[in-house]
Amino acid sequence: MKPSGIVTLLTDFGYKDPYVAMMKGVILSVNPAARIIDITHDVKAGHITQAAAIIQETYPYFPEGTVHVTVVDPGVGSERRGIALLTRSHLFVGPDNGIFWPIMDAHPDINIIHLTETRYFLPHVSHTFHGRDIFAPVAGHLSRGVDPFKMGSVIDNPVQLKRPAPYQKGDTLFGQVVRVDHFGNLITNIHRKEIEGFTGGRTPVIRLGDLIIKGMLKTYAQKGKGETLALFGSSGYLEIGVNLGRAADLLGVDDTKIIGTQVEVNRSLEDHS
Amino acid sequence: MKPSGIVTLLTDFGYKDPYVAMMKGVILSVNPAARIIDITHDVKAGHITQAAAIIQETYPYFPEGTVHVTVVDPGVGSERRGIALLTRSHLFVGPDNGIFWPIMDAHPDINIIHLTETRYFLPHVSHTFHGRDIFAPVAGHLSRGVDPFKMGSVIDNPVQLKRPAPYQKGDTLFGQVVRVDHFGNLITNIHRKEIEGFTGGRTPVIRLGDLIIKGMLKTYAQKGKGETLALFGSSGYLEIGVNLGRAADLLGVDDTKIIGTQVEVNRSLEDHS
Amino acid sequence: MKPSGIVTLLTDFGYKDPYVAMMKGVILSVNPAARIIDITHDVKAGHITQAAAIIQETYPYFPEGTVHVTVVDPGVGSERRGIALLTRSHLFVGPDNGIFWPIMDAHPDINIIHLTETRYFLPHVSHTFHGRDIFAPVAGHLSRGVDPFKMGSVIDNPVQLKRPAPYQKGDTLFGQVVRVDHFGNLITNIHRKEIEGFTGGRTPVIRLGDLIIKGMLKTYAQKGKGETLALFGSSGYLEIGVNLGRAADLLGVDDTKIIGTQVEVNRSLEDHS
Repeated sequence: MKPSGIVTLLTDFGYKDPYVAMMKGVILSVNPAARIIDITHDVKAGHITQAAAIIQETYPYFPEGTVHVTVVDPGVGSERRGIALLTRSHLFVGPDNGIFWPIMDAHPDINIIHLTETRYFLPHVSHTFHGRDIFAPVAGHLSRGVDPFKMGSVIDNPVQLKRPAPYQKGDTLFGQVVRVDHFGNLITNIHRKEIEGFTGGRTPVIRLGDLIIKGMLKTYAQKGKGETLALFGSSGYLEIGVNLGRAADLLGVDDTKIIGTQVEVNRSLEDHS
Repeated sequence: MKPSGIVTLLTDFGYKDPYVAMMKGVILSVNPAARIIDITHDVKAGHITQAAAIIQETYPYFPEGTVHVTVVDPGVGSERRGIALLTRSHLFVGPDNGIFWPIMDAHPDINIIHLTETRYFLPHVSHTFHGRDIFAPVAGHLSRGVDPFKMGSVIDNPVQLKRPAPYQKGDTLFGQVVRVDHFGNLITNIHRKEIEGFTGGRTPVIRLGDLIIKGMLKTYAQKGKGETLALFGSSGYLEIGVNLGRAADLLGVDDTKIIGTQVEVNRSLEDHS
Repeated sequence: MKPSGIVTLLTDFGYKDPYVAMMKGVILSVNPAARIIDITHDVKAGHITQAAAIIQETYPYFPEGTVHVTVVDPGVGSERRGIALLTRSHLFVGPDNGIFWPIMDAHPDINIIHLTETRYFLPHVSHTFHGRDIFAPVAGHLSRGVDPFKMGSVIDNPVQLKRPAPYQKGDTLFGQVVRVDHFGNLITNIHRKEIEGFTGGRTPVIRLGDLIIKGMLKTYAQKGKGETLALFGSSGYLEIGVNLGRAADLLGVDDTKIIGTQVEVNRSLEDHS
């Protein structure tokens, strides 16, 4: 794999502190030609599963040979390992805390390297900021084409992350809300393929708390202003929204409390859509 | 026009979701040498007029041959067209919903191309995210120098946007607040030229709700801390502010409710400034 | 010093307005090869000391020859000077209002140039946005290698900034909270060296309001969820935090009111740690 020279950053560091800029300075000190793209730094503090979902959804849009640094790291400074991961087309760097589990899950032939070669780190490694002191310089070296297998030894026991998966029980398909986006849309963990397999051509009826939505639309603009609807979002997952409004506001609780809310899909008995 | 290789992005996608990063990955996949600059992603959701004002005010500071991708797109997936626009010095890409109306208005010789050539899109185009699937790849191709006239056919009936314009009635010039900036300054739609033409050398008296401000200053620092003042902002529009404070807080309502508030300018009868 | 071609930006302009993008457009118009990195634009409006602390902490992570544009500028348009500063390894550009005082303080041999050569500015300089009209174009020229000594004359009377320094009184070392970070950690102005010199091997006991913390840890993960702890942060300063929680929330006041809160360090009489 030829490096693209691009490094993406995904963290829970926010935008007001200089932590992200320090990482960028370190990357550019190692590889002055690196091109750095922010995915987001607004992952909820410490929420590994949220970062895991975002990196899985986002990395395929980048060129082959891109290095993805993903740091949500509540265990920094403890015994948790730092790792680099290598699929056939992309590289990943971050803590071994499950954050890359969806990537591993989708790539059985992935190589995972425990980062131990300190010559690829900053000379002084703090106990609280491995993003800057280990992951950024490692990413800088990888983006220049340094062989990841020189940075430590291959491991086969990475930390795994249990994620809630949709399941069928009786005549109902159960899933949950995994993300509330900037527009207040509720993104679920139920993929188009699962719903289509489940409904077999019948109209799906979606229930979320008191909301009941019959049938799937293709675009928000198919409904009037303020009306609730369900569609498959741009990544293929069932999404509940309000045209020109915020579905999240219908639930009357904080966005962060909506994550995990159960979603039920039933098959309409009346018709074939 | 030679491409500068720079692509700017202006959206209402916010900073917490990976939507903007997906667009950047797509642009870099098409043109690995592209240089991407964020204008802002904090346009109020769906507010086309706000994005229109920002792109008009901002694009002239970029080098000739820059591609400006502007996506506030509540009608995504409906019949609304995607367009590219070509002035003598800059390129623009986005939905045909009026967002580029100030640019069209200022450039009678602009060329507008309805984007129909799918070979410049992503292979799969979703119904809900044309920013990623159409506008980003088109911008990537334009930033490499692909001829926009190959991307579709020229149209002459773009969607137009009615914007509130200042007007004179009797002895008063009426305008309105069009933006509240990060510092709480109230930016109006009345340009320096209009006020100077109206006052003809007499001192302007500005009224906004209960606030009455006599005369224009040059800088915030000319007033004491907490004092209200009026000046022409860095883009030439009448702006009401508070030195080391937030004018928006004086009105006692949410920033988003301040947009549209009427501003009156009168000519002082007492003196010549 | 050879220019790195990198320009960093640190302002209080926020993320919703186009002000920062205008600066980037100007920099790229002067130096199309410049690479621009945001430090943050979320400095509290007008807080010069906060920006001063951030630039001091952050610039060393960037390559030699980087230009750092730092604009928190409540006196814009008044008589305050614009300056460029030159250490042996880095360049700085911004208002002469004390924002670079920590840099000057650490570099007695620094050169400070009062920016007066208007040919390095935009042709029209507004009264309210020198970030765009003076500092951005100057930074663009510096990043291309233009000699800063050509941009004005050397001065030796820059504005100085009084910052609160830790001090010892009786058996207690006094300092204060200078920053609340995104995770709610309270960053103080007491450096590891000062505490180690003060305690001479005895266990420090830290008091902040009602909080009393005995001893320093190395990582957040050494405490249970929700427990309070003290450690030396990634820049070496005493930091009070809560594992997987927000220390700032313990104080029951707004983050902005926590800045300046007194912190006391005592030496435990019981033991040698």
